[in-house]
Amino acid sequence: MVVLSSYVQGRWVVPDVDEADAAPVRDAVTGEEIARLSTTGIDMAAALEHGRAVGGPGLRALTFHQRAALLKALASTLREHRDELYALSTRSGATRADARFDVDGGIGVLLTYASRGRRELPNDNVLLDGTLEALGRGGTFVGQHIWTPRHGVAVQINAFNFPVWGPLEKFAPAFLAGVPSLVKPASPTAYITHRLVQLIVGSGLLPAGALQLITGSAGDLLDHLTDQDLLGFTGSASTARKLRAHPAVVAAGVRFTAEADSLNCSILGPDAVPGTPEFDLYVNALTTEMTVKAGQKCTAIRRAIVPNSMLDAVGEAVSERLAKIVIGNPADPSVGMGALAGLEQREDVRRSLKALLDVSTVVFGDPDHVEVIGADADRGAFMSPILLRANGDRAEPHEVEAFGPISTLIGYEKVADAIALAIRGKGSLVGSLITHDQDVAREVVLGIAPWHGRMLVLDRADAGESTGHGSPLPTLVHGGPGRAGGGEELGGLRGVQHHMQRSAVQASPQMLTAITGRWTAGADRRVTDVHPFRKSLAELRIGDTVVAGPRTVTVADIDHFAEFTGDNFYAHTDAVAAAANPFFDGRVAHGYLVVSFAAGLFVDPAPGPVLANYGLDNLRFLTPTYPGDELTITLTAKAITPRDGDYGEVRWDADLTKQDGASVAKYDVLTMVAERWPMAAPDQTVAISSEGPK
Amino acid sequence: MVVLSSYVQGRWVVPDVDEADAAPVRDAVTGEEIARLSTTGIDMAAALEHGRAVGGPGLRALTFHQRAALLKALASTLREHRDELYALSTRSGATRADARFDVDGGIGVLLTYASRGRRELPNDNVLLDGTLEALGRGGTFVGQHIWTPRHGVAVQINAFNFPVWGPLEKFAPAFLAGVPSLVKPASPTAYITHRLVQLIVGSGLLPAGALQLITGSAGDLLDHLTDQDLLGFTGSASTARKLRAHPAVVAAGVRFTAEADSLNCSILGPDAVPGTPEFDLYVNALTTEMTVKAGQKCTAIRRAIVPNSMLDAVGEAVSERLAKIVIGNPADPSVGMGALAGLEQREDVRRSLKALLDVSTVVFGDPDHVEVIGADADRGAFMSPILLRANGDRAEPHEVEAFGPISTLIGYEKVADAIALAIRGKGSLVGSLITHDQDVAREVVLGIAPWHGRMLVLDRADAGESTGHGSPLPTLVHGGPGRAGGGEELGGLRGVQHHMQRSAVQASPQMLTAITGRWTAGADRRVTDVHPFRKSLAELRIGDTVVAGPRTVTVADIDHFAEFTGDNFYAHTDAVAAAANPFFDGRVAHGYLVVSFAAGLFVDPAPGPVLANYGLDNLRFLTPTYPGDELTITLTAKAITPRDGDYGEVRWDADLTKQDGASVAKYDVLTMVAERWPMAAPDQTVAISSEGPK
Repeated sequence: MVVLSSYVQGRWVVPDVDEADAAPVRDAVTGEEIARLSTTGIDMAAALEHGRAVGGPGLRALTFHQRAALLKALASTLREHRDELYALSTRSGATRADARFDVDGGIGVLLTYASRGRRELPNDNVLLDGTLEALGRGGTFVGQHIWTPRHGVAVQINAFNFPVWGPLEKFAPAFLAGVPSLVKPASPTAYITHRLVQLIVGSGLLPAGALQLITGSAGDLLDHLTDQDLLGFTGSASTARKLRAHPAVVAAGVRFTAEADSLNCSILGPDAVPGTPEFDLYVNALTTEMTVKAGQKCTAIRRAIVPNSMLDAVGEAVSERLAKIVIGNPADPSVGMGALAGLEQREDVRRSLKALLDVSTVVFGDPDHVEVIGADADRGAFMSPILLRANGDRAEPHEVEAFGPISTLIGYEKVADAIALAIRGKGSLVGSLITHDQDVAREVVLGIAPWHGRMLVLDRADAGESTGHGSPLPTLVHGGPGRAGGGEELGGLRGVQHHMQRSAVQASPQMLTAITGRWTAGADRRVTDVHPFRKSLAELRIGDTVVAGPRTVTVADIDHFAEFTGDNFYAHTDAVAAAANPFFDGRVAHGYLVVSFAAGLFVDPAPGPVLANYGLDNLRFLTPTYPGDELTITLTAKAITPRDGDYGEVRWDADLTKQDGASVAKYDVLTMVAERWPMAAPDQTVAISSEGPK
Repeated sequence: MVVLSSYVQGRWVVPDVDEADAAPVRDAVTGEEIARLSTTGIDMAAALEHGRAVGGPGLRALTFHQRAALLKALASTLREHRDELYALSTRSGATRADARFDVDGGIGVLLTYASRGRRELPNDNVLLDGTLEALGRGGTFVGQHIWTPRHGVAVQINAFNFPVWGPLEKFAPAFLAGVPSLVKPASPTAYITHRLVQLIVGSGLLPAGALQLITGSAGDLLDHLTDQDLLGFTGSASTARKLRAHPAVVAAGVRFTAEADSLNCSILGPDAVPGTPEFDLYVNALTTEMTVKAGQKCTAIRRAIVPNSMLDAVGEAVSERLAKIVIGNPADPSVGMGALAGLEQREDVRRSLKALLDVSTVVFGDPDHVEVIGADADRGAFMSPILLRANGDRAEPHEVEAFGPISTLIGYEKVADAIALAIRGKGSLVGSLITHDQDVAREVVLGIAPWHGRMLVLDRADAGESTGHGSPLPTLVHGGPGRAGGGEELGGLRGVQHHMQRSAVQASPQMLTAITGRWTAGADRRVTDVHPFRKSLAELRIGDTVVAGPRTVTVADIDHFAEFTGDNFYAHTDAVAAAANPFFDGRVAHGYLVVSFAAGLFVDPAPGPVLANYGLDNLRFLTPTYPGDELTITLTAKAITPRDGDYGEVRWDADLTKQDGASVAKYDVLTMVAERWPMAAPDQTVAISSEGPK
């Protein structure tokens, strides 16, 4: 039997141990031994130092866009190996549907971060946070928050239930942030993560040190954590508490985050009586959450909170559904629920179930027996789904988590009671509410929000597209307060920022421009003989400026624009009425007119590298323009963002002023600019999406 | 001698203790006893429960704007009592300048949060986070992150050095978030915070339970923390570690944040040689940071990192400045540096100084003796400023913090060495760099950012307005990674969000609209006979919509607009050249033209409650408009934000479509709307700032 290697310091290291001293991992279905695990002889301190000294610098040498591109390529590679990962997952008790949830879900996280990184992050290594803060009236002293990658290693201790998604959902945001990962899978499914990392390493895509793997016990790993490292954990609340208080974690101020199993609830709204679409949705959701991954999901519904009047109806309907689910060898396509991850896991679940049974009645399932097909019910870690029913006043249903196909029905009388029951979970990863009543939705969601990282409101309107109660999405935060660990993962860029340090920078605009690579109002502007619209992306520099004007706005202009556009708002057309408006002293020019005139002033008419204006941001009209006012526009390249291929985006700072220097309007002009000019003839028309060209 | 009371459960409670059993607090200048402290008999669990059961609900019944208004009123009240607080501060060893830093700084925090709350938060109790996430292609399932106030108590353990600013900088963001505070001041200056809270309570402004005070030992307070509570601490790194690992904090997942004393550095750039303005700025900054509050600032410069070639020059110049500073009774206006907070504090500092002296030479000051005026140098906690010089290779200068008027000069050879020295502090609240070299600024700031919560770049350009190395600002984050505690306070809304829970909500657009009170694209629109521009703020509802059009765009329109505005960009005027542009199939209408036409369609000309269009946000041109295209505009009230007085802001969702239903442009239109119509005649013209009307 093979003892699995670890991938540390850039090579696969076989543990220095006799096979007999390594812990066996068994097939969840057959009980056969699959592999053995040990990390004896692995130098944990050296692995961490390799990440810090080699992995970090290598990653930080890349921009966000370059890292995003690598994530995309990695997803493609893994996609080619999906079938192998599915097949391996069968040995953990996972059906094909379970395996897709894990494998495809993990690849989906890579793709989402690839896409978000490219679209929402700059082609740089520094990320701005929030807007510029004016710190002095004179404009010489300003503040800007920035995010920079931490210089440590992200140690990621994963749970056994998602051996592919789990590591990837922690790795992708860390990688995009520029922080190397050190992955430690849970023993029961470590062989799947081991294969995953083999595929990743084998792809040759990642910079050295960006990903390491510890296959087996963490040993003294945590003792070597230092102040720039991060520790991320998914698993039980009790282990989360131990890690949080680990002496090295506390002493060095290691950034710690936990996603802990929680007593997630799903609430059935009082309107969702039998016969409504919502009732059926609830029965579906509960059945699904009990049986997918044999209930081994941190996000599964543990508490089904339903109106007292519907307890029987829900119990019956769910029982009917559960009775139809075939349990057995997950390799058999007719099987709807496979095995738990191992016999030890089943023992754990049975122990918790026993505590719940003290205060519950069994609505469905036999705690001691299960019928299976294609497998041996004793040698494999099989278990019947068990639906319980308990009084919500008892503590156990809110505190004892049976990490298997087990949920408890709890009745409530009023909506306020349902909220009170939900929050007895003391913090959950997710809660759901199935209702078509908007008042109930507002009351419940705002009532339980402080205890929840994610909430799903399901009804006939969104059911067709809903991804369900139990599915974390890469664009939404995954985590929850209190018992759920207090962490936040994923959530798009939020998960990336978790791996970075936010710092406030106070400086002059000129210095801030130099530091951030983004032009800051008040910094030097560069006006030359060449109009900046005649510069390609490769030639343009931030600070490049065109000043144009003045152009006098006349009464005739205003009259004409009103007539032409149909915008006859009285402030533009009626001097007496305009003067009665608290914001104006008489007739004023249209805001749309003055920005149109500004464009007429700054535009360079002939074909050139600036291809299109795809939008405006943060336009504010600051001073009214009256007839006779003379407008001057100052347009300065503020941010230059190369994109894949032939184009990039340029954000221009626009300041439209009048004769006394007062700003009439300030805004950002967004343009698409060719990388080189003249450019090669395009093959086809390019569409511009809300984030720029597709 | 009086034993100070605590303010808990809505009343002032005198501890149940003999005076002899209460701990004395002494005047830092004279050694006289001022008061005694004890919390014997104070029911800590009941105080917390009072905050949760009375304070929280009372605060959450108010909107952000209402809370902001209370903060403003509170600031006004405290301002009337400044002189009393200054005078009291003298007893803690603070000069008038020191006291202003503390008292005025604290009032400034209240004012900043009052202003930010009003301008940047909705007049509601829910705050949206980030943008809408499309979770399905059909648009029926969307995601939105929201912030809601935590339902616990914010326990705030403060340091002795800022008895007014410290409590207020923690209280203001908690209060604005809707979370009650329980304040525990440090013993040496508890009498000042006690008086502060008396003034606050006496103002009668705060809702019941919003603020409680524990004057003395925390007793078993922490044991009673639960999952929704927060614990904020300012003080030593060692105490921060103890609190972080406290069993109740770990068990309940209490949200913990610490701002710990750190070994902050200030780096002198290689360009800032004697004779440059930057050299003088450095000497000034170091002298100031050593002596303000007698160096008892978490943010003070402990390590002065300067080029080896300038060690002597800096040492001499700073010594010359320090020699001129009069030390003594802070009530004497000629005194530049007062006493430490007490004799125990001085003992602590002397102990740390001893450790530093093992590896340092003394550049300025006598560790064992100080000349003072108007006081007794032994009975008062006086100490000389001490400037040391050490080799940066030694550990002590980077690890031993003497929390008094003590700094260590450390030399460096290359900029990279300065960075390496800075990060040996293992995480700081603040670092500064004095340089006029932009390349040095970028290298150093990005190099040390992961170890810093705040960084100041000081040079001749911003010195006039700079607030200095040691001053946290309410709009910038205060906190730092690693040794500095890993926390973040202040930072404008960031500090408010720290007291809230972020949750992802997944729902249909209709449900999301009901939950957030903000119209979400895809939710129902309400079109009635009344144009929504004819509705006052009081009458308008989110979802109110006007649909107008179609209007056909002609070649003549495009020609005319180009001629009129001067915007002759070839894509609008030259069919052949336009077709060669990768984004267009031929001549296209100007973006400014189509949004002007849209305004012509949706505007309601006659005087009415809509007073002005003050801006546009997030305008994106999504599909080109070709001659012959027919435009229709759909404008829907998305967010309604009442402001103080007669106006409010309405954000309209604008979707400009053409005949095939494709969106030509999407944007938000921002308008000022009268609360009532007809409105009273205004007294004067109102200016619109970038955040709306002033």
